[in-house]
Amino acid sequence: MSRYALKVEYQGAPFAGWQRQKDQPSVQGAIEAALARLEPGPHTIAAAGRTDAGVHGLGQVAHCDLSKDWDPFRLSEALNHHLKPAPVAIVAAARVDDDWHARFSAVERQYLFRILQRRAPATHDKGQVWRVNNSLDVDAMREGAAHLIGLHDFTTFRSSICQAASPVKTLDELRIERVQGFSGPEIHFHVRARSFLHNQVRSFVGTLERVGAVGWSPDDVKTALEACDRAACGPVCPPQGLYLARVGYPDDPFTS
Amino acid sequence: MSRYALKVEYQGAPFAGWQRQKDQPSVQGAIEAALARLEPGPHTIAAAGRTDAGVHGLGQVAHCDLSKDWDPFRLSEALNHHLKPAPVAIVAAARVDDDWHARFSAVERQYLFRILQRRAPATHDKGQVWRVNNSLDVDAMREGAAHLIGLHDFTTFRSSICQAASPVKTLDELRIERVQGFSGPEIHFHVRARSFLHNQVRSFVGTLERVGAVGWSPDDVKTALEACDRAACGPVCPPQGLYLARVGYPDDPFTS
Repeated sequence: MSRYALKVEYQGAPFAGWQRQKDQPSVQGAIEAALARLEPGPHTIAAAGRTDAGVHGLGQVAHCDLSKDWDPFRLSEALNHHLKPAPVAIVAAARVDDDWHARFSAVERQYLFRILQRRAPATHDKGQVWRVNNSLDVDAMREGAAHLIGLHDFTTFRSSICQAASPVKTLDELRIERVQGFSGPEIHFHVRARSFLHNQVRSFVGTLERVGAVGWSPDDVKTALEACDRAACGPVCPPQGLYLARVGYPDDPFTS
Repeated sequence: MSRYALKVEYQGAPFAGWQRQKDQPSVQGAIEAALARLEPGPHTIAAAGRTDAGVHGLGQVAHCDLSKDWDPFRLSEALNHHLKPAPVAIVAAARVDDDWHARFSAVERQYLFRILQRRAPATHDKGQVWRVNNSLDVDAMREGAAHLIGLHDFTTFRSSICQAASPVKTLDELRIERVQGFSGPEIHFHVRARSFLHNQVRSFVGTLERVGAVGWSPDDVKTALEACDRAACGPVCPPQGLYLARVGYPDDPFTS
């Protein structure tokens, strides 16, 4: 058996999330079905982040084991052929060591969250942004976000079904930028940490949107964080603006 | 009756084109149905450009006549409400004179064509770009495009079902730029003229792609143009990368 790392891009909308489920379409299930077209299964793949329903992959990473010795480029081409017409694509593949693990070898995850700021419904970016009517105060959101950087107990920003052993995590970056998008002004949140709690990014963005809309003050974010109480969190924002953008490894398998 | 100009954005994929058809979904039909929810119909709207199946609207302009005196902002909000969940949005509305006409008052049209240059299938931009495997020589494409600027007989770049009175048109701009897109390098074609022949932009882009892939030389574009023969055209490219980006009027109704 040889192990391969796969960099995966996908639209979240058609799937009930990354994880394989019995009666619903999943990204994992789609890729495992494509693998079974190459070599008899069953196949079980592992991913760096098990994204929720509606959440997109931009730089998701998974690994698979195959008995045949595949040229990585030909493997990605063959998988893309069998994945059609699902909006899932293998954008890179690489041979890795047998003990390399997409999830456990990862040392960093980066998420992107896109807000489209306009009145009219999204058309070209439908299902790929969170459209917000309000004009948002980005400086206030940045001030609020600064309270979240570093080592904290993030119980406030963790869903009640989160299975992580501890709510204490280090947030390395929460950068907010204005971007001129294809169909209007967007606000992008770049969020980076070694690992995340369940719903952490959506809890951050939903809370910071309240700050941007001037319902909350930037200091209210600090108060919410220090409460260590889920009830102190702002409204969790919808999933369709969220992308798993990048996964970091000590040696990037896709550039070596 | 009062006349209103509407700036319209839409995805091309779900529609058989702009123009109303008996048994197929159309953008015109969707907007006319929304208008009928506001005032009893039938309504007939006119657009600056009757885009083909699969072609997108980014800055399409249409006009409608209504008996009630509508506040333009409330009109756009009401139409967007009734257009849901179709990927069509009224991004601006304005009151115009009774003799103002979305098509006949227009003095300029601008199209955008997007090529996504990568091996893997498009996911986030599926149906919204033309994905091309080849690495394209943009300088050669620009050299080829230069032959098309100005007043010419564009018979070569005109579909056989084109209904325009004359194949002689002035092309004001055909600018090609590299853009870092959301999921890979893109090549954008910005094409501007008073008016266009049927399939003219897609005939240009399909021909210039051949130049970029080094199958044709830049001078072959000049030869094709001078042939004044549809058979001399390169392959017409697919519609899904094409956007009607902007329509120009002597006085822009949406800024006055």
